[in-house]
Amino acid sequence: MTRKITDRTPKEDGFFMPAEFTPQDHIYMIWPKRKDNWRDGAKPAQKAYRDVALAICEFTPVTMLADYECYEEAKKMLGETVRVVEMTSDDAWCRDCGPSVLVNHQGQRRGCDWRFNAWGGMVDGLYSPWEADDAIAGKICELEGMDYYSLKDFVLEGGSFHVDGRGSVLTTEMCLLSKGRNPGLSKEEIEKTLLDYLGASKVLWLKDGIDPEETNGHVDDVACFVRPHEVACIYTEDEEHPFYSVAKENYETLCHMKDSDGEILKVHKVCLPKHPVLLEGAETIEEVEGTIPRKNGDICIASYLNFLITNEGVIVPQYGDEHDAMALEQIQGIFPEKKVVGVFTREIVYGGGNIHCITQQIPSPLKSR
Amino acid sequence: MTRKITDRTPKEDGFFMPAEFTPQDHIYMIWPKRKDNWRDGAKPAQKAYRDVALAICEFTPVTMLADYECYEEAKKMLGETVRVVEMTSDDAWCRDCGPSVLVNHQGQRRGCDWRFNAWGGMVDGLYSPWEADDAIAGKICELEGMDYYSLKDFVLEGGSFHVDGRGSVLTTEMCLLSKGRNPGLSKEEIEKTLLDYLGASKVLWLKDGIDPEETNGHVDDVACFVRPHEVACIYTEDEEHPFYSVAKENYETLCHMKDSDGEILKVHKVCLPKHPVLLEGAETIEEVEGTIPRKNGDICIASYLNFLITNEGVIVPQYGDEHDAMALEQIQGIFPEKKVVGVFTREIVYGGGNIHCITQQIPSPLKSR
Repeated sequence: MTRKITDRTPKEDGFFMPAEFTPQDHIYMIWPKRKDNWRDGAKPAQKAYRDVALAICEFTPVTMLADYECYEEAKKMLGETVRVVEMTSDDAWCRDCGPSVLVNHQGQRRGCDWRFNAWGGMVDGLYSPWEADDAIAGKICELEGMDYYSLKDFVLEGGSFHVDGRGSVLTTEMCLLSKGRNPGLSKEEIEKTLLDYLGASKVLWLKDGIDPEETNGHVDDVACFVRPHEVACIYTEDEEHPFYSVAKENYETLCHMKDSDGEILKVHKVCLPKHPVLLEGAETIEEVEGTIPRKNGDICIASYLNFLITNEGVIVPQYGDEHDAMALEQIQGIFPEKKVVGVFTREIVYGGGNIHCITQQIPSPLKSR
Repeated sequence: MTRKITDRTPKEDGFFMPAEFTPQDHIYMIWPKRKDNWRDGAKPAQKAYRDVALAICEFTPVTMLADYECYEEAKKMLGETVRVVEMTSDDAWCRDCGPSVLVNHQGQRRGCDWRFNAWGGMVDGLYSPWEADDAIAGKICELEGMDYYSLKDFVLEGGSFHVDGRGSVLTTEMCLLSKGRNPGLSKEEIEKTLLDYLGASKVLWLKDGIDPEETNGHVDDVACFVRPHEVACIYTEDEEHPFYSVAKENYETLCHMKDSDGEILKVHKVCLPKHPVLLEGAETIEEVEGTIPRKNGDICIASYLNFLITNEGVIVPQYGDEHDAMALEQIQGIFPEKKVVGVFTREIVYGGGNIHCITQQIPSPLKSR
């Protein structure tokens, strides 16, 4: 029995979103298949998704959602370890269309189902239609038997914010104030909605993300909470790097920021790939009306920061870049208590995202922790 | 993590199917939508399915599986009480394409996934294709995280047998020996497969069911176990009734039958509707290639025996027939410890089945009982 709640906010009901670095029951992912987004009929992307899923399984159970047409093939490729559940989607970004799952101090969980419009709707969205993706969050809550707050007049993606579970929400103006999200709302109204629905008390605003074109600057390529009062942030001293100025500006902003507890943040640096990842093999991506065509040489948004923290593990993107090992070392240094695992995800970057973008956690209830 | 087991049998592993009259965790159903089987675009059938689901919910939680296209409508009609989960199907008969769920004495459960071929495949099946339905059992097991025996070279539907959970399997020759099922196997081989995969020791063979044309005589319209050593059986003294001779023959056979414990069965009589249910409104059923056309006046298979026993409840078909009240009274007499609930299911009968045909139980593990 699942209730859809539209007349109250999580904050009123004592619910809040816990930090990603706290215990999780489960990770949801969505099997990729769009031939107009992924190279070579999505086969190489499917292998990369499988690698990510299997890496996560070492720490946390994974459910892979797959369209009816892909179900058998997904099951075959994923083997016995990953649970496969049929669910129709438009593409494969569970962070952004999945539910944000909240907890309270009575051991209950509830979902939050925001409006998803493919990162900008008819203003600058990446594909159309997006109805199937927009239905995913509610369906996951229903599947889990979890009541959920339905906030379908507010556009938000899970990758556009991070929380510390203590009252702070980290996000970017580039995304949340973009014209394709909630143009009718003021910054103050957007802030209030975030706080009410994530059960938080302070929004920490960064200015820009590193991908103005795709997600309009999701924070999950730039910075994240790693424990109370501490964040990781992308950083490079290479002035020629395409993300140099954004990384530098965000790093400096964070170094002077106070969280909801009034503490100055400690900021850990995470390097960027030495060489930008450029799209290759674009000719194997089908051109279809309603999606933006891709071309060889397009800069892909490759950030080591788009990792997933999941129980005793941290799953980190690897690109075959000279900085891969340094990134793993830095992230291991940030999480000495966890096991850092690298997964080669160049293929996922070609499709527009990375490990954090394709995963969504179901946190453990507080009382069972 | 779900294993598909192909190299061992449930009997070897100590698993058996428990009786329907023992504790259940959950009931699965499938939302109807075929316009070439149901009247008026399936709308009246959907209402009848909803009524059955809500009646069951008083005793046992229900999950309704619904195609992507029907999901929202199903959720809207079913309300908060019934869990709706997306799953593609060809039609809506979860008894026949769902898994048979087994238990062992260590508190574990496993599924059994038989081949489903729409009641006869290319010999006398009722629709084609049936691939989606044939995949349902495995998908339910995967969803439940339940290992399952995959027996895809053996055709069997859940409605074609009943078990007492003590070693007896009740079935009909008309169905299990029909040409559209397993024509390459002898009666002895079929018997051995039933016993191995249902964890039983004796097959009780009835000769015929009451619907040679549709399911080829499923036993679940004719007789079922109601407690150890006791069965219910359809019965009428009206020699003009179309099911008179089959009912009489089965009643007499059962009265002289010994179960796997060597006990002579006690047989309870359940009346038939006084007036056969004849199809009306066939002109609103779409004619489509690959399905058998329906016409007004066709005899529909209306039996009160096609009830579902579910925990403290028994959900019984009602037709608006003079015998409706008597049927409820008789069945209440058989189950004095349970609450008997009638649901008007004429619309489901028009589509070819009834309450038992459209439900499939997930039994409780033995240790939690």
